[in-house]
Amino acid sequence: MAAQGVTPQSEDFARWYTDVVKMADLADNAPVRGCMIIKPYGYELWENIKTALDVRFKATGHRNAYFPLFIPMGFIEKEAQHVEGFAPELAVVTHGGGKELEEPLVVRPTSETVIGHAFSDWIQSYRDLPLLINQWANVVRWEKRPRLFLRTTEFLWQEGHTAHATELEAREETLRMLDVYADMAINECAIPVIKGRKSDQEKFAGAAESYTIEGMMGNSWALQSGTSHFLGQNFAKVFDIQYLDEDNEQQYAWTTSWGVSTRMVGGVIMAHGDDKGLRLPPRIAPLQVVVTPIWKTDAEQTLIHSFCSSVTDQLTAAGIRFHVDEREGLSPGFKFNDWEMRGVPIRIEAGPRDCENHSVMVARRDIPGKEGKQVVPVQLLATTISELLEEIQANMLKQATEFRDARLHEAATYDELKEIVGEGWALIWHCGTPECEDRIKEETKASSRCFPLHLNEEWEPAGQKCTVCGQQAFGRAYFARAY
Amino acid sequence: MAAQGVTPQSEDFARWYTDVVKMADLADNAPVRGCMIIKPYGYELWENIKTALDVRFKATGHRNAYFPLFIPMGFIEKEAQHVEGFAPELAVVTHGGGKELEEPLVVRPTSETVIGHAFSDWIQSYRDLPLLINQWANVVRWEKRPRLFLRTTEFLWQEGHTAHATELEAREETLRMLDVYADMAINECAIPVIKGRKSDQEKFAGAAESYTIEGMMGNSWALQSGTSHFLGQNFAKVFDIQYLDEDNEQQYAWTTSWGVSTRMVGGVIMAHGDDKGLRLPPRIAPLQVVVTPIWKTDAEQTLIHSFCSSVTDQLTAAGIRFHVDEREGLSPGFKFNDWEMRGVPIRIEAGPRDCENHSVMVARRDIPGKEGKQVVPVQLLATTISELLEEIQANMLKQATEFRDARLHEAATYDELKEIVGEGWALIWHCGTPECEDRIKEETKASSRCFPLHLNEEWEPAGQKCTVCGQQAFGRAYFARAY
Repeated sequence: MAAQGVTPQSEDFARWYTDVVKMADLADNAPVRGCMIIKPYGYELWENIKTALDVRFKATGHRNAYFPLFIPMGFIEKEAQHVEGFAPELAVVTHGGGKELEEPLVVRPTSETVIGHAFSDWIQSYRDLPLLINQWANVVRWEKRPRLFLRTTEFLWQEGHTAHATELEAREETLRMLDVYADMAINECAIPVIKGRKSDQEKFAGAAESYTIEGMMGNSWALQSGTSHFLGQNFAKVFDIQYLDEDNEQQYAWTTSWGVSTRMVGGVIMAHGDDKGLRLPPRIAPLQVVVTPIWKTDAEQTLIHSFCSSVTDQLTAAGIRFHVDEREGLSPGFKFNDWEMRGVPIRIEAGPRDCENHSVMVARRDIPGKEGKQVVPVQLLATTISELLEEIQANMLKQATEFRDARLHEAATYDELKEIVGEGWALIWHCGTPECEDRIKEETKASSRCFPLHLNEEWEPAGQKCTVCGQQAFGRAYFARAY
Repeated sequence: MAAQGVTPQSEDFARWYTDVVKMADLADNAPVRGCMIIKPYGYELWENIKTALDVRFKATGHRNAYFPLFIPMGFIEKEAQHVEGFAPELAVVTHGGGKELEEPLVVRPTSETVIGHAFSDWIQSYRDLPLLINQWANVVRWEKRPRLFLRTTEFLWQEGHTAHATELEAREETLRMLDVYADMAINECAIPVIKGRKSDQEKFAGAAESYTIEGMMGNSWALQSGTSHFLGQNFAKVFDIQYLDEDNEQQYAWTTSWGVSTRMVGGVIMAHGDDKGLRLPPRIAPLQVVVTPIWKTDAEQTLIHSFCSSVTDQLTAAGIRFHVDEREGLSPGFKFNDWEMRGVPIRIEAGPRDCENHSVMVARRDIPGKEGKQVVPVQLLATTISELLEEIQANMLKQATEFRDARLHEAATYDELKEIVGEGWALIWHCGTPECEDRIKEETKASSRCFPLHLNEEWEPAGQKCTVCGQQAFGRAYFARAY
């Protein structure tokens, strides 16, 4: 049975999503249409994803920096594909300090241009390379059909920008960061994303090649959850990022960029949530454990209150993020539902009988009903909970992987594709041309998600034809409905 | 002797500042005038200040959230003083998504209005109070005379926003956060700031009362380094932040706001720097130790390289942030100067003789020349360096405090004030009126910094007259040249 106020997933997945975002107190619409207010619980979830990424960026030698919000309109116009891609989504500042500006300023939709401009200054010789920079920032892309976390006019993200002496190094970096993203998504968010290459039409405006991690959501749709771009020398040539090589000759650098945004929060909600609300993987959950004291009389309340401190001592010692729900005037059942809605991985119930037995009832969010419950003696709590959190993390990844694998199908014909994309992802041989993609999208609503790397050893393999149009195939691609 | 490329402080403090910001690789001007690019070394310094604050905010029960960059123009106009204060500094978005907007959007100069709007929705009953929120964000205030970190059109900051059931609680919160700021400034940044109340003219646009921490810079000028505002019910009334009290009656909430920005980085530079460059307090220094291997022959290089790993093993074990400068083709002297410019608190020199003796030469940035140097056996390195870092931190605070105390003077007459503010801060009895402040500013260039809390037990003490105009004094105030 769905939680009160929540549309069941089976009835309307989009409404289920909106309901849960509101009921779990993650985010709100802002007064400016398309913008969002990220509430503390949603922001803490983002902070944990952010930290998980930041640690990985630093471990791979990247340093954080900060570039300006405002970009001269002329910068955006320098790279032809870039401006074509972003022009319709720009927010433009025309007045500043009480005057009309001579040149309008763009609120950054992404920072390749302004960072390219800076890099041309920072980079002089091969000794300055590789230059490995990341920025945590807000960006703005005007959104006509906004949805909280998934598509908002302003969103938070990180954008990595790197410059290299050789094409090979830049290509390696592009795939290294794709691996970092996949590692984060799989091992922190428990979303078994598929790494792949984007088709020409789906690639970043100005990139030579784009790579993606694609996650499967609870309605079997795909969510592009992070992208990594090999920019070739496109931006280096436009922004004059040159270096003096070891032979004292001027060379253009090779650059990359890569980003993950607050959209990932939407991915976590949709990959794991159920009709009772959120289900959060322990590693990124703002709260890993909620303790709900249960009492009736005042005497019991005093007793349980002190019993709870022996419980929380154990949790503190084990470094677990927890909260004790001591709200008065609410029934235990109401509190259970409330914390299930918020997706807290473990609930500890502590009532008078538990106190007597010096044990507590532990309930898992990932396994409903009696099966997910066990009695744990208080003195074993620290180890048991730590182990359980690991187990829940692993189980959520397993559940999501099984769910995904049951919905990945090969389609030998276009008709098979049409059937599959109703409730899964169809793997076909595909030509990779925009025309063929457009046709499929129009007829089936499914779009090219990616050419998965593990299923494509080479591009344009001899003799393989597109399943839909019969032209030479570029490779095997997943098609699916997507956000 | 000043470092090459750096104007001596005694010659021109403003140019010294600009030179050091550039030479120490902290920041650059952005292509858009007034904006700044924070380079990795400068950003790491900010990250450490940020972490020091964030820990303190969470320890005092605040939660992070995120509110939108864009604010409807109408919101800003709702609070009369607020719009009067901020109107001249606004950046305005008039076009979005390829169309002219119906209502122009303001790029947030601060978020009282949009957060007030949200709070009116979040707060229903006394149970929802206190509401303790903080946001890490960028803000934009159009700046006509920009200076890196000190005054930039876009800057990074945190803004705390809280709502309380009673006036008393809101007042307590205002001063609690002022204490948090002072604690951070004194114990992390080694800047002995003075806590005080702002005069009516200097207070935040829309506040009932503003409080400040004021730091003394190396040229004896003051820098407002953080502010905490008691907003009374001003914003609550305008944005309808009401709650149902325990007697079931609607009441307006009492709110506060408080902020520290990237300006603090400028404060650290100017409070501690000398003609050789930055001097960074160990607790916030991106690098606490730099190891410079010294070699001549290839054989020595190999030897020293492996010797350095026994050095860095010790540093790693002690959790110290360090860097080994293995750049080739640069003399040790050049490297020493380079790291002094970057203000690294401790330099370790490791040459062939050190290797032989299994010891290293340790040089402190806070004590120049031979006095700051000592030979340390490698096996004692972890403890010695950890202790030294504590000692340097304490010594820098001591140096800054002595410097400040030698420049704080009481002025019994206006003439004395005029003399003092050339190279210090003058403490006078002051009426606190804008007219008198304006006169002093015009005639001496000194402005009212604050009414220090520790020197004012009561406001408007009977019988005390303003040192300058002779009216009833509001209290004792510091006047000084300021940024």
